[in-house]
Amino acid sequence: DFLNALEEVHPAFGVSEEELEQVMQNGIYDFDTAVDEFLRRGKLLVEQVRSSERTPLVSVLLYGSPGSGKTALAAFIAKESKFPFIKLISPDNMVGFMESQKVQAITKVFTDSYKSPLSVVVVDNIERLIGVDGLDYTPVNDRFSNSVLQTLLVLFARRPPKGRRLLIIATSSLLSTLKKLGLGEVFDSEQLVPSITTIGAFNHILRKVKLFANNSQLEDALQRLAGLGFRTGDTDDLDFATDEAFPTPEIGVKKLLSVIEMARQEPENVTKRLVDGVEAVARKRVRDKNALRYADA
Amino acid sequence: DFLNALEEVHPAFGVSEEELEQVMQNGIYDFDTAVDEFLRRGKLLVEQVRSSERTPLVSVLLYGSPGSGKTALAAFIAKESKFPFIKLISPDNMVGFMESQKVQAITKVFTDSYKSPLSVVVVDNIERLIGVDGLDYTPVNDRFSNSVLQTLLVLFARRPPKGRRLLIIATSSLLSTLKKLGLGEVFDSEQLVPSITTIGAFNHILRKVKLFANNSQLEDALQRLAGLGFRTGDTDDLDFATDEAFPTPEIGVKKLLSVIEMARQEPENVTKRLVDGVEAVARKRVRDKNALRYADA
Amino acid sequence: DFLNALEEVHPAFGVSEEELEQVMQNGIYDFDTAVDEFLRRGKLLVEQVRSSERTPLVSVLLYGSPGSGKTALAAFIAKESKFPFIKLISPDNMVGFMESQKVQAITKVFTDSYKSPLSVVVVDNIERLIGVDGLDYTPVNDRFSNSVLQTLLVLFARRPPKGRRLLIIATSSLLSTLKKLGLGEVFDSEQLVPSITTIGAFNHILRKVKLFANNSQLEDALQRLAGLGFRTGDTDDLDFATDEAFPTPEIGVKKLLSVIEMARQEPENVTKRLVDGVEAVARKRVRDKNALRYADA
Amino acid sequence: DFLNALEEVHPAFGVSEEELEQVMQNGIYDFDTAVDEFLRRGKLLVEQVRSSERTPLVSVLLYGSPGSGKTALAAFIAKESKFPFIKLISPDNMVGFMESQKVQAITKVFTDSYKSPLSVVVVDNIERLIGVDGLDYTPVNDRFSNSVLQTLLVLFARRPPKGRRLLIIATSSLLSTLKKLGLGEVFDSEQLVPSITTIGAFNHILRKVKLFANNSQLEDALQRLAGLGFRTGDTDDLDFATDEAFPTPEIGVKKLLSVIEMARQEPENVTKRLVDGVEAVARKRVRDKNALRYADA
Amino acid sequence: DFLNALEEVHPAFGVSEEELEQVMQNGIYDFDTAVDEFLRRGKLLVEQVRSSERTPLVSVLLYGSPGSGKTALAAFIAKESKFPFIKLISPDNMVGFMESQKVQAITKVFTDSYKSPLSVVVVDNIERLIGVDGLDYTPVNDRFSNSVLQTLLVLFARRPPKGRRLLIIATSSLLSTLKKLGLGEVFDSEQLVPSITTIGAFNHILRKVKLFANNSQLEDALQRLAGLGFRTGDTDDLDFATDEAFPTPEIGVKKLLSVIEMARQEPENVTKRLVDGVEAVARKRVRDKNALRYADA
Amino acid sequence: DFLNALEEVHPAFGVSEEELEQVMQNGIYDFDTAVDEFLRRGKLLVEQVRSSERTPLVSVLLYGSPGSGKTALAAFIAKESKFPFIKLISPDNMVGFMESQKVQAITKVFTDSYKSPLSVVVVDNIERLIGVDGLDYTPVNDRFSNSVLQTLLVLFARRPPKGRRLLIIATSSLLSTLKKLGLGEVFDSEQLVPSITTIGAFNHILRKVKLFANNSQLEDALQRLAGLGFRTGDTDDLDFATDEAFPTPEIGVKKLLSVIEMARQEPENVTKRLVDGVEAVARKRVRDKNALRYADA
Ligand SMILES: Nc1ncnc2c1ncn2[C@@H]1O[C@H](COP(=O)(O)OP(=O)(O)OP(=O)(O)O)[C@@H](O)[C@H]1O
Ligand SMILES: Nc1ncnc2c1ncn2[C@@H]1O[C@H](COP(=O)(O)OP(=O)(O)OP(=O)(O)O)[C@@H](O)[C@H]1O
Ligand SMILES: Nc1ncnc2c1ncn2[C@@H]1O[C@H](COP(=O)(O)OP(=O)(O)OP(=O)(O)O)[C@@H](O)[C@H]1O
Ligand SMILES: Nc1ncnc2c1ncn2[C@@H]1O[C@H](COP(=O)(O)OP(=O)(O)OP(=O)(O)O)[C@@H](O)[C@H]1O
Ligand SMILES: Nc1ncnc2c1ncn2[C@@H]1O[C@H](COP(=O)(O)OP(=O)(O)OP(=O)(O)O)[C@@H](O)[C@H]1O
Ligand SMILES: Nc1ncnc2c1ncn2[C@@H]1O[C@H](COP(=O)(O)OP(=O)(O)OP(=O)(O)O)[C@@H](O)[C@H]1O
Ligand SMILES: [Mg+2]
Ligand SMILES: [Mg+2]
Ligand SMILES: [Mg+2]
Ligand SMILES: [Mg+2]
Ligand SMILES: [Mg+2]
Ligand SMILES: [Mg+2]
Repeated sequence: DFLNALEEVHPAFGVSEEELEQVMQNGIYDFDTAVDEFLRRGKLLVEQVRSSERTPLVSVLLYGSPGSGKTALAAFIAKESKFPFIKLISPDNMVGFMESQKVQAITKVFTDSYKSPLSVVVVDNIERLIGVDGLDYTPVNDRFSNSVLQTLLVLFARRPPKGRRLLIIATSSLLSTLKKLGLGEVFDSEQLVPSITTIGAFNHILRKVKLFANNSQLEDALQRLAGLGFRTGDTDDLDFATDEAFPTPEIGVKKLLSVIEMARQEPENVTKRLVDGVEAVARKRVRDKNALRYADA
Repeated sequence: DFLNALEEVHPAFGVSEEELEQVMQNGIYDFDTAVDEFLRRGKLLVEQVRSSERTPLVSVLLYGSPGSGKTALAAFIAKESKFPFIKLISPDNMVGFMESQKVQAITKVFTDSYKSPLSVVVVDNIERLIGVDGLDYTPVNDRFSNSVLQTLLVLFARRPPKGRRLLIIATSSLLSTLKKLGLGEVFDSEQLVPSITTIGAFNHILRKVKLFANNSQLEDALQRLAGLGFRTGDTDDLDFATDEAFPTPEIGVKKLLSVIEMARQEPENVTKRLVDGVEAVARKRVRDKNALRYADA
Repeated sequence: DFLNALEEVHPAFGVSEEELEQVMQNGIYDFDTAVDEFLRRGKLLVEQVRSSERTPLVSVLLYGSPGSGKTALAAFIAKESKFPFIKLISPDNMVGFMESQKVQAITKVFTDSYKSPLSVVVVDNIERLIGVDGLDYTPVNDRFSNSVLQTLLVLFARRPPKGRRLLIIATSSLLSTLKKLGLGEVFDSEQLVPSITTIGAFNHILRKVKLFANNSQLEDALQRLAGLGFRTGDTDDLDFATDEAFPTPEIGVKKLLSVIEMARQEPENVTKRLVDGVEAVARKRVRDKNALRYADA
Repeated sequence: DFLNALEEVHPAFGVSEEELEQVMQNGIYDFDTAVDEFLRRGKLLVEQVRSSERTPLVSVLLYGSPGSGKTALAAFIAKESKFPFIKLISPDNMVGFMESQKVQAITKVFTDSYKSPLSVVVVDNIERLIGVDGLDYTPVNDRFSNSVLQTLLVLFARRPPKGRRLLIIATSSLLSTLKKLGLGEVFDSEQLVPSITTIGAFNHILRKVKLFANNSQLEDALQRLAGLGFRTGDTDDLDFATDEAFPTPEIGVKKLLSVIEMARQEPENVTKRLVDGVEAVARKRVRDKNALRYADA
Repeated sequence: DFLNALEEVHPAFGVSEEELEQVMQNGIYDFDTAVDEFLRRGKLLVEQVRSSERTPLVSVLLYGSPGSGKTALAAFIAKESKFPFIKLISPDNMVGFMESQKVQAITKVFTDSYKSPLSVVVVDNIERLIGVDGLDYTPVNDRFSNSVLQTLLVLFARRPPKGRRLLIIATSSLLSTLKKLGLGEVFDSEQLVPSITTIGAFNHILRKVKLFANNSQLEDALQRLAGLGFRTGDTDDLDFATDEAFPTPEIGVKKLLSVIEMARQEPENVTKRLVDGVEAVARKRVRDKNALRYADA
Repeated sequence: DFLNALEEVHPAFGVSEEELEQVMQNGIYDFDTAVDEFLRRGKLLVEQVRSSERTPLVSVLLYGSPGSGKTALAAFIAKESKFPFIKLISPDNMVGFMESQKVQAITKVFTDSYKSPLSVVVVDNIERLIGVDGLDYTPVNDRFSNSVLQTLLVLFARRPPKGRRLLIIATSSLLSTLKKLGLGEVFDSEQLVPSITTIGAFNHILRKVKLFANNSQLEDALQRLAGLGFRTGDTDDLDFATDEAFPTPEIGVKKLLSVIEMARQEPENVTKRLVDGVEAVARKRVRDKNALRYADA
């Protein structure tokens, strides 16, 4: 099955396997049916590139709040494709680059990809690549690299040469800002990265990471989390969270793992620290989401 | 007849035939009478340049929403002219160029064209050449290359030397923005690229691409598309869509082809994926069109 | 007489006759009494420079909507002066120049002119020389070359050395913008280029260009044009058009010639194409004029 | 007497006499008692520099509408001082200079002046030196050379070395803009250049320039000018014009001389052209003055 | 006990002990239980980095008003960790650096830290590193180094290589500005630096610094300080100050020490000077805090 | 006594005595008790630096309207300290410097000061060093050198090395602007420079400068000045002027000396010129002060 397939990819031309592994070193927890559905859709896009003659270029944007797991999921889908060319474009490798060096580095990855019959290019953290300076939605906020932006706008739409096929997986936490920058029309598909919104998801993860010594402690924690507004049912629709009129709390999986480790430091206080930490993050999320929805309207 | 003439153009000085072919590799579907009318008008402009002494320079802007088929239609008209000099100026070939390099490259194509008695220059995707950063209609949004813009403004109006004639075909998805930049007065003619607004057009295309196994499936899909608001009659006037008070849904042909290929990946779900995909794009279109109309008022 | 004097100018030091001819290659039609008056005033300015000791520097701005004939008229007046030094400063010859190169080229023409006892310098299309980016009347629109602007502001006011006399003829389509840039005070005189506002003017031009096969076709066309709001009387005052409370439609002569040639391509539809084309341009004009008047208030 | 003293200045170290003559080549007409008062005050400032130990640096700003005679009056006062060092800093001599070159040229004149016991430096047309781009009073209008501005701000306040004395005469048409730029506090004195506001002043000048063949023509013209609102009495106070609640029309002497020469070209129409020309300029002045007063409030 | 452990750190690779000592040369006064709690939380973060496998990168932001003791506390926590690599990134060492030099210097410290198994990097005074120009909360205030900001955004989130662990301690007085710049999501934890809000805290410090000759003078001073609104009870919750609806006065410990030394200069007036000085600072604080709270809402 | 101590400072390493003398060449008039109090406070700060171990760095801002005597007073306090290192950083010595040169020059003075056990650095006219362009309080007014600002922000807060002590005396006329730039928190003390607000102060100065021939003339002048609103009592509190609800007129001592010398030129009119000159300046002051108070609120 696709989800548990984290194994035997043969080393191949143009694949930096170690880098892919590193960004998902805590694994991928299957904490929700939304995660299954998300990965199934990712796989379909891979298959489309592999098989459809009419669409040699397919691009998808994975978006979600900071720490929701975007980078890990992009890497997972890329690796599972087993395409001969898989590359990750990340701001982590461009610290201190000048604009022109960024443009050159990005362009090179795409130009290289055009030499392989089947390629995946992951463009991680677009807002950081472009250097957008925050969550400010004002029209005058224009401190970013327009040359990097224009390069991406063209590369995301440029067809590979005859006989070559390319899947572009981009990630971002700033969907509204991207749209304002003209990146709202360029992707063939946009997928919301599932975050943790249900008690079931907490249950799944808390068991995996073994935070609690016994079941009754765990039950107590889950009850307190339910008190924060997390739903006790299951998610049966991927877009559930965004369709609701009333925003429910949510927390990204990476953020949750961070809160868990911080709580682990105070064994005598672990439940309080966990719940307080989740609450602090989740409250911000609700606020941001409202802003997001407003900005997308 | 003009529409089906995609054949035997003899190789000629100054024509990059392969490039022209590539941008219309999925062919031109005659999905609507609006397409015929559009191409007839394009042909008339070609004839004007060929024959009229008084207008050695004719320029036309093809505008329409992203993915509506602008590039393919510009290439088609250019190729059909069979003029000895046909060149495509595209942002795809200027990735990573500095402003001054863009200005130089653009200027060179025009200067070369002045050496041929009859020329067509396609200036594709003006907003991307200039580097305008999005759909933001605010007056302060001035992140673009003013030097490229000023170069285009002059070249679009500069008469070729005595005895030379030139047709300029420009394309853009951002009509209102162009107007704000002073590009609203420079073209002799502006043509809206027809997009898909009728069930008849869907019927035409869905049959061509053979998405459905049988007719009843197709009928079912068309019925659901009608449910989205697409009209069941025919377009008899090219400007119909923009003259209406109440915006009707629409989708560009390139976008539709992309949605179709994505749907094809899920044979068990093909109708749902098709209709959902069309709806997602069409809803955006209606919104953008309102903005467009407002901005043009 | 002055109007029909397009002949025997002797080649002279500092006159680029060919360039002057080229910009008025379709001739100057005497379509209205306003054209006579306009040219008479131009001639008076030439005489003032030639004869008055107290004003060795005289400058005039010819303004009017795009395609109204500004460049042709400036060239005509300049050529008729028969001054030994006549030069045209045009953005057409500065494509791709950097700011400093523009400043240098402009300065050189003026410095050269100071060596001739009598000179005319035509500064064509000021807004394009400065690189103002459009028709936007907002105060924040500051995308232009301030160094070119400052150079012009000083050169337009700098007296030639003792014993030298200079006529500056500048042209522009953006009167309000120029005023906002501080160019509203520098000219000794400002002249509105007459555009076509009467049926009589249409009649004059349509006969000259022989668009129609017979008189009844012409009469029919004129009647339909009258239906658009063009006046049937004559203009007896140059400033008539701008003094009215209710804006009348108008179209520049260059624009009209372009519409005529386009209509000529469809013999079976010529009247409809002509009237539609005129209407499309004229409607915009009314809108712009309102904006202009407002901005000048 | 001071007013008619345009004679026998002996050539001296550091005085560019020719340049001073050139900027007042049409002479200084004593058209009003306000002119006498203005010059008397100028002379007092010269005497203060010559005699007072406590104020080795005195600076005055001559301001008035474009063409009011600022440059000529500054040159006249400077020349009459007969100080051994008199220099004119003018944008006319800095066409095409880069910011740093302007800063250097300006600084050099001041540094040179510090070597003479008594000096006058005329800084003509400050707004053009700084490159302020117009009459726009918006706060965002910041297209100018801040480095030139900062240089002037410091030089206008820097005391000359021990034993040296300096009079700075600056001119400007944009008082309000200067104030917004921080130049409102730096001058020891500000003098409004008198413009023509009375019929008496017109009478004085029109006689001097001999525009009319006979007295009755002149009388007729003066009557029509009175019809425009120009006052028939005399100005007995220099600040009269600005103290009034209701703005009276006015025209600068340089502008008037330009209108006169233009009218002289049409002998048959001379009165109409004169009055029309004066009216056109004067109407603008009233408007600007209101803006000025508002901005100064 | 942790608080009084300011002793025997052994010199180690990559630790600049002297620099750490210098920034806390006035010692750390334990003036409140909030100080204990603050230091306890700091120690927990150190332990998390030392022990937890899942979080090799932990980052904390210490924020508080200017002079509240941020730098001293950051240095104290860092030094107490006794990690082999401890470095301080401070704007004090980058005076006169160009943007690119700052980026390089910052990047080097992080790159060096990746070579040690356990590291602490203190990034002091983020707003000064970035060069944000003040307390202005307007959206247009964009005078800062975006390249330094983008570098920090990436470095604060970049995982150290396998087997390395890193604690980042950042400090700032401009929490709201940081959030607007996109720095609101990057830290795993944010800690408010406790400032002096209670009479008990004053009592503690005033005794330590021996400002008063006798107890009755001290009592009198404390009573007057209570009159300014400082609370007489104790703080039992770290977040007390920010949770209140009605802002209480507060003063940073560094500011208080400065006021104390100034008062010490006027022995005859010491109480008045102390209370006036505290009042002046505290009043500003209340104002700023309101702004802060508003901006954070 | 401190006030009359303008004598026998021994030449010392690092003191530019001549420069200090030059900026107070008209002496320091003891026109008001506020002047005594001001100088007493200055002396206390000097003593604090000399004696207190805990505050090796003390900074004070002297602020007041243009021409109020800031530079002279800063120089006086510095000179009276008799510290071995006294330096003046003034925009007068940086005319034409580029930003980087300014940063370098400023940094050098501070670095040099760190070598002396006791130092005073006067940073004169901060707004001119930074290049802020005026009195405009709008948020978009950001024409200044951010790199100079950031340098000052860091240097004003950076502790001298162990065993060194430094007094920083800064001056400015634009308190509100400085605060907006983030300079509101950096000084340990802020002192308003006393300006002339009472008839007593006028009396003191007018006698010293011997403007009037006899006492009755003086009495008459003082009476007229009282008519302008200047108070007849004495100032007994330094902050009196700013605490009042209703602004009283005021004039800086430097401005007053300038008005006096100008009046001296017209012996027959001396009283009128004096009173008019004072009124013109004082009226502006009231206006500015309101703006100041508003901006500080
Ligand atoms: N279902 C899951 N989806 C994504 N990540 C998961 C999942 N389960 C566990 N993880 C782990 O959670 C972490 C997700 O972190 P990741 O860096 O991908 O988040 P991110 O959204 O890219 O964060 P950022 O906004 O900071 O870029 C990884 O360590 C990953 O191994
Ligand atoms: N009637 C038609 N008009 C235009 N394109 C058509 C038509 N029928 C089929 N096509 C195909 O549809 C696609 C249109 O894509 P094209 O790149 O021209 O769109 P576009 O509007 O330029 O897109 P973009 O906004 O991304 O530049 C081409 O593959 C073309 O072969
Ligand atoms: N009366 C006329 N006045 C001006 N041009 C005329 C007239 N009659 C005929 N023409 C022709 O009309 C054309 C005017 O074009 P011209 O380039 O001068 O217009 P323009 O206002 O400068 O346009 P643009 O705004 O594009 O610079 C020329 O070809 C000229 O020969
Ligand atoms: N009383 C007068 N005052 C000033 N100029 C006079 C006077 N009488 C005659 N003139 C003449 O009028 C002209 C004034 O022009 P001048 O260039 O000094 O005006 P300006 O205000 O500096 O113009 P601009 O605003 O364009 O710089 C000169 O030619 C001068 O000789
Ligand atoms: N409990 C305490 N917490 C912090 N500092 C203390 C404490 N007690 C005494 N101090 C002393 O107070 C001073 C705090 O100054 P510090 O420079 O750390 O403040 P800061 O908040 O970083 O100031 P700035 O905003 O100017 O950067 C140090 O001298 C430190 O030794
Ligand atoms: N009590 C006084 N305080 C200050 N200056 C005095 C005093 N009495 C006389 N003066 C003289 O007044 C002048 C003050 O000028 P100074 O340059 O110090 O003013 P400023 O406020 O620095 O001006 P600016 O705003 O232009 O920098 C000096 O010449 C000084 O000798
Ligand atoms: Mg990520
Ligand atoms: Mg295209
Ligand atoms: Mg033209
Ligand atoms: Mg002048
Ligand atoms: Mg600090
Ligand atoms: Mg000063």
